[in-house]
Amino acid sequence: MKVGFIGLGNMGLPIAHNLLRAGHQLTVYNRTRSKAEALASAGAQVANSLGEACQSGMVMTMLADDRALEEVALGDGGIVDALARGGIHLSLSTISTALSRRLTQEHTLRGQIFIASPVFGRPDAAEAARLVVVAAGPLEAIERVRPLLAAVSRKVFVIGSEQYAANAFKLAGNFLIASVLESLSEAFALARKSGVEPAQFLEILNGSLFQSPVYEIYGKIIVEGKFSPPGFALRLGLKDLRLVLSAAEEAAVPMPLASAIRDHFVSGVARGWGDLDWAALAKVVAEDAGLQAL
Amino acid sequence: MKVGFIGLGNMGLPIAHNLLRAGHQLTVYNRTRSKAEALASAGAQVANSLGEACQSGMVMTMLADDRALEEVALGDGGIVDALARGGIHLSLSTISTALSRRLTQEHTLRGQIFIASPVFGRPDAAEAARLVVVAAGPLEAIERVRPLLAAVSRKVFVIGSEQYAANAFKLAGNFLIASVLESLSEAFALARKSGVEPAQFLEILNGSLFQSPVYEIYGKIIVEGKFSPPGFALRLGLKDLRLVLSAAEEAAVPMPLASAIRDHFVSGVARGWGDLDWAALAKVVAEDAGLQAL
Amino acid sequence: MKVGFIGLGNMGLPIAHNLLRAGHQLTVYNRTRSKAEALASAGAQVANSLGEACQSGMVMTMLADDRALEEVALGDGGIVDALARGGIHLSLSTISTALSRRLTQEHTLRGQIFIASPVFGRPDAAEAARLVVVAAGPLEAIERVRPLLAAVSRKVFVIGSEQYAANAFKLAGNFLIASVLESLSEAFALARKSGVEPAQFLEILNGSLFQSPVYEIYGKIIVEGKFSPPGFALRLGLKDLRLVLSAAEEAAVPMPLASAIRDHFVSGVARGWGDLDWAALAKVVAEDAGLQAL
Amino acid sequence: MKVGFIGLGNMGLPIAHNLLRAGHQLTVYNRTRSKAEALASAGAQVANSLGEACQSGMVMTMLADDRALEEVALGDGGIVDALARGGIHLSLSTISTALSRRLTQEHTLRGQIFIASPVFGRPDAAEAARLVVVAAGPLEAIERVRPLLAAVSRKVFVIGSEQYAANAFKLAGNFLIASVLESLSEAFALARKSGVEPAQFLEILNGSLFQSPVYEIYGKIIVEGKFSPPGFALRLGLKDLRLVLSAAEEAAVPMPLASAIRDHFVSGVARGWGDLDWAALAKVVAEDAGLQAL
Repeated sequence: MKVGFIGLGNMGLPIAHNLLRAGHQLTVYNRTRSKAEALASAGAQVANSLGEACQSGMVMTMLADDRALEEVALGDGGIVDALARGGIHLSLSTISTALSRRLTQEHTLRGQIFIASPVFGRPDAAEAARLVVVAAGPLEAIERVRPLLAAVSRKVFVIGSEQYAANAFKLAGNFLIASVLESLSEAFALARKSGVEPAQFLEILNGSLFQSPVYEIYGKIIVEGKFSPPGFALRLGLKDLRLVLSAAEEAAVPMPLASAIRDHFVSGVARGWGDLDWAALAKVVAEDAGLQAL
Repeated sequence: MKVGFIGLGNMGLPIAHNLLRAGHQLTVYNRTRSKAEALASAGAQVANSLGEACQSGMVMTMLADDRALEEVALGDGGIVDALARGGIHLSLSTISTALSRRLTQEHTLRGQIFIASPVFGRPDAAEAARLVVVAAGPLEAIERVRPLLAAVSRKVFVIGSEQYAANAFKLAGNFLIASVLESLSEAFALARKSGVEPAQFLEILNGSLFQSPVYEIYGKIIVEGKFSPPGFALRLGLKDLRLVLSAAEEAAVPMPLASAIRDHFVSGVARGWGDLDWAALAKVVAEDAGLQAL
Repeated sequence: MKVGFIGLGNMGLPIAHNLLRAGHQLTVYNRTRSKAEALASAGAQVANSLGEACQSGMVMTMLADDRALEEVALGDGGIVDALARGGIHLSLSTISTALSRRLTQEHTLRGQIFIASPVFGRPDAAEAARLVVVAAGPLEAIERVRPLLAAVSRKVFVIGSEQYAANAFKLAGNFLIASVLESLSEAFALARKSGVEPAQFLEILNGSLFQSPVYEIYGKIIVEGKFSPPGFALRLGLKDLRLVLSAAEEAAVPMPLASAIRDHFVSGVARGWGDLDWAALAKVVAEDAGLQAL
Repeated sequence: MKVGFIGLGNMGLPIAHNLLRAGHQLTVYNRTRSKAEALASAGAQVANSLGEACQSGMVMTMLADDRALEEVALGDGGIVDALARGGIHLSLSTISTALSRRLTQEHTLRGQIFIASPVFGRPDAAEAARLVVVAAGPLEAIERVRPLLAAVSRKVFVIGSEQYAANAFKLAGNFLIASVLESLSEAFALARKSGVEPAQFLEILNGSLFQSPVYEIYGKIIVEGKFSPPGFALRLGLKDLRLVLSAAEEAAVPMPLASAIRDHFVSGVARGWGDLDWAALAKVVAEDAGLQAL
C-alpha cells in the first residue's frame, strides 16, 4: 500500500523499515530531515512537507508525545489540514485519551478517519516486527489498514470503535508494566537487606510462579544494573505515568499505585537518571533503602 | 519417615494427606481434635498432646500466624520443650522474620535444629502436591527432611543456612503476588471507566505480554467477581502485608507500594470483606472509583 | 484608579465590590453578561468586550482555572491582543506555573507587564476584604497597583520579580491547607473508631497545641459535616492538587502526600461529591474506614 | 503525695524534678541506677528495685516504648506483681493501644487501677512543667492523682474512662504533628525548586494563615537545618508511626498519609539519620527531590 509515515525515532525507524520490507510504498517525513534520508536507500520516498506525506490519503504517525503529535496533526499545514476527505490517519503513538478524543473529533469534522492503534513492545520488538497492536476506530477502516499493522507486529487486536479506548488500553498496559518495575524494585531491596540473593530470588519466583517474560526481562535488567543504553527512558516512563493519571482523573479513578510509581519517576529525574532505562526506578528504591543500586 | 504434624487448616490438611500418601508415618496434632481424627482413617496416628507429636524427633508445623506458632512452639509444653536434643522442627508457615530469628535462637540453645521452609501455593496446589518450597537452615538437616518436602511439592529450593532469609523470601514473594492484585485492580477500574472490557484487556495483555499463570488466575477471579469461597482470605492477606512491612522496617527498607496495598486490605476489612478472597482488593479499588465490583 | 475587571465568580464578585467601595473605577466584563450588569448599580461600567475592559491600560483577572484565563488572555481579541504597550495585567487566579510563565512571556513580548498576585482566602474573606495577597513581578509596577491589592486584602506580600514563583507559592500554600484536611480526616477516623469524640479531640489539640484558625475552621466543618454550600468546591480542590503536582513535576519534586490527597479528591468526585466543600475529603476517608461521614 | 517514679530519660527526668519541686515525695527507680542517684540531691529517694518504687501504692511510669513498659510492668517482680490491691499505676508513656488494653486487664484482674495519661510536649516543655496531659481511666482515681499531673503540665484533659482511648488520642495527635512535618517538607522542597525562599514562605503562611506554634517551631527547625541535638529522635518518630498504624489496623482505619510518613521515617533510618530530630524527615524529602537539606 501507499502510505505516509511521520516520526522516525527509535520506534518509528524500525517500524518504517518493516513496512518497506513488506513491500509497502512509504513516503517518510521527519522534522530532522537526515533521518528520513537514511531511509531512502531502503526504498522510501522522502517528503519535503507534512502535506506530501499525506498525499496518498493514508498516513501513519509514531511520535514521542502529545505535543509532537499535536503539532504534526493539528498545527498549521498539519495532517488534519492536508489529508483529503476520506483519508485515514493511523496513530501508533502512546498519547493521552484527551488528545485521542480531540483528534477523533477534528478528523471526523473533516470527513477523515482517525484510527488509534498504539503498540506494545520495546525497540528490539519493533525491529523484529514483533510488536503487539491494539486498535480502535471505524472497523471497516481498520480492516483496510490491517496489512500495514500486520507488517510490523506479531499480533493485532481490535478492541472496538471508540478510538480513545485503545489509548486508555495502552496506558493501562504500560501502568501494569511499570507496576512490575516498582514491585520488583521493592522486593529486591527487601531481599538484599534480608540476606536473600536477588538473582536467585528472581530465578525461583519467576521460574516457579510468575513464568513471565516481563518479569524475566526487567528483573534481569535490575539485577544486572544495566540501565544504559535505555530501551525506554525513565523520563518517558514519567510521561506515560502522567498520561495514566490524567486518563484516570478524566474517568474519576483513583490509582494510588500509579501515583507512587510516578513519584519515584519524578525522584529519578531529580537524581539525574531521566535518560536511563525506566527500570532505573530500582535505583531510586534502592537508594531510599540506603543501598547502592545493584 | 516418622514425623509429627501440627496444624490441620486448609493448607495443613492436604499437606498431611500427601505425606501419608507418600508413605510417611504421621502423628498428627490439632487444637480442634476432630480435625486430627479425620486423618486417622487415612493412616495417621492422633496425638493427645504436642509432646506426643514431637516424640519421633521430627515435627512439621503449618499454622495460620505468628501467634499460633508461638504458642505451639514456645508455650509451656510446646515444641521447644518437648523436642529431644538433635530433633528437627520444620516450619512451613508464613511467619515474621522476627519470630523466625527467635525460634532459631531457642532451638539452637537446646541443641535442636530449626528449618524454615515456607511454601508458595493455594489450597488446590497443596492438594495436588504442587507447592513450591523455599527452605533455609543447616544444609545437612535439610537434606534429611527433603523426602518430606518433596512429597508435598513440585519443587524444593534451598536458599542458604540463615533461616529468617527463607521467611523474608516468602514475604517478598507474597508481596509480589499482592502487587499483581493491586495493579490489576487499578488497571481494571481504569479500563472499565474508559470503555475497555476487562476480560478482553486481561486476555490480550496476559496472552501477548505477561503470559503468567498468576495474572491469569487472579485476573479471572477479579473479572468474574468470584471472591467466595476464598482460596486465601483477605484478612490473611492483611496479615502478610503487615509481616512484609515489619520485615522491611527491621531491614530499614521503605516499601510504599506495600503500604498502599496494606491500606487497601485494611479498608477491605473495614467494609466487611475480611473473609473474601484477598483478590477482593479489587472491590475496594472499584468502590473507590465509584464502581460496583465486577 | 481606572481598571478593568474580568471574572465575576464567587471570588471575583466580592473582590470587585470592594474595589468599587474603595473608590476605584471599574469596567467589568463577564462571559455571562447578567453578572456584570448586577455590578452596574454599585457603580461599575459594563464592558461589551474583553477589549473594552482593557482600555484603561490596567486589567485584573480572577478566573476559575487555566483554561478560562488562557481563553481570556491568549484567545483571539484577548487581553494580550487588546492591552496597550506598557499596560498591566494583574492576575489573581490560582493557575499553573506553566501558564504563568507563558503569560509572562507573551506580555513581555508586547511590552506589557504581567503581575502574578494570587490570593489566599475563602469567599467570606473576599467579602470582608481580608484576603492575603502574594505578588511577584516587576517591582515598580507592583507598587503602582498596590492600592488595588490593598483594597481587597488585609495583607500584601511581594516575594520577588519572577511571576511564576508567586503561583508556586500559592499552590504550595493550598497544598498545606489540603494537608490539614487529609490529616484531620485520618485522625478523626482513628479517633472515632477508638472511642475518642472528634469534637473534643479537635478542641483539645487545637486549643492546646496547634492554636490555628485553619484547624479550627476546617476541623469544625468536618466535625459538623457541613459540606454544603461549599466555600471551595472539592472539584476545585482536585484542580489545585493537579496544579501542585504539575508544578512539582516541572521542578522535579516528588510529593507523595500531595499524590495521596489528589487520589482522595478523585475518589470524592467518583462518589458524586465534587460540588461539596473540599473538606468532604473527610467523607472519603471515613467511608474507606467503614464509617458514615460525621 | 508519696509516689514511685520509673523511667528517667530525657522526658522522665524533668518531669520527676517538677514533681519534687511541687513537694511530692518521690521514690525513683531507673535501670541505670546513676540516673536515679542524680535525683537524690533534689530530694528523691532511690529505690533498689521496682518493688520498692511501688510501695507507696502509687507509681508513675515514663518509658521509651512498649517493650520497656512491658518489662517494667508485666515482667517478673514488675509493677503488676508489686503493687498492692487498690494501688494505682499512672502511665505517661506513648504506647500502643494493644498494650494499654492488656495493662488495663492485668491491673484490673488484681484489683489495681490503671490510668493512661500520655503527655504532649518536647523536653523543653517538660522542663517548664508545660506539658499537656490527656488522661483516661476510672474517673475517681484520676481525681486523686490530679495534683501529680497538674505539677508537670499546663493543662490536664480527662477524656473518658476507657484507658486505651487516651493512648489512641495521643497517637492521633502525634500523627497530626508528623503530618505537619511531612507537609512542610514537601512544600519547602517545591518552594525551593520554584524560586521561593522557604523562610519567607513560612513566615508569610504561618504569620497570615496558620498562626500556629507547631508550624513555627518545626518550620524553623527545618529552615535552619538544626536537626541535632534532637528534641525527639527520628527513630522514635518511626516508632510512633508504627503505633499509629497498628492502632489504626486494630480499628480497621486505612491511613495512607500515616503510611507515607512512616515510609519516609524508615528511609531516614536507612540513610543513617535515626538519631536526628524527627523533623529530619525534611532531609529525606529534600534528597528525594535532588536537593541538599537546608
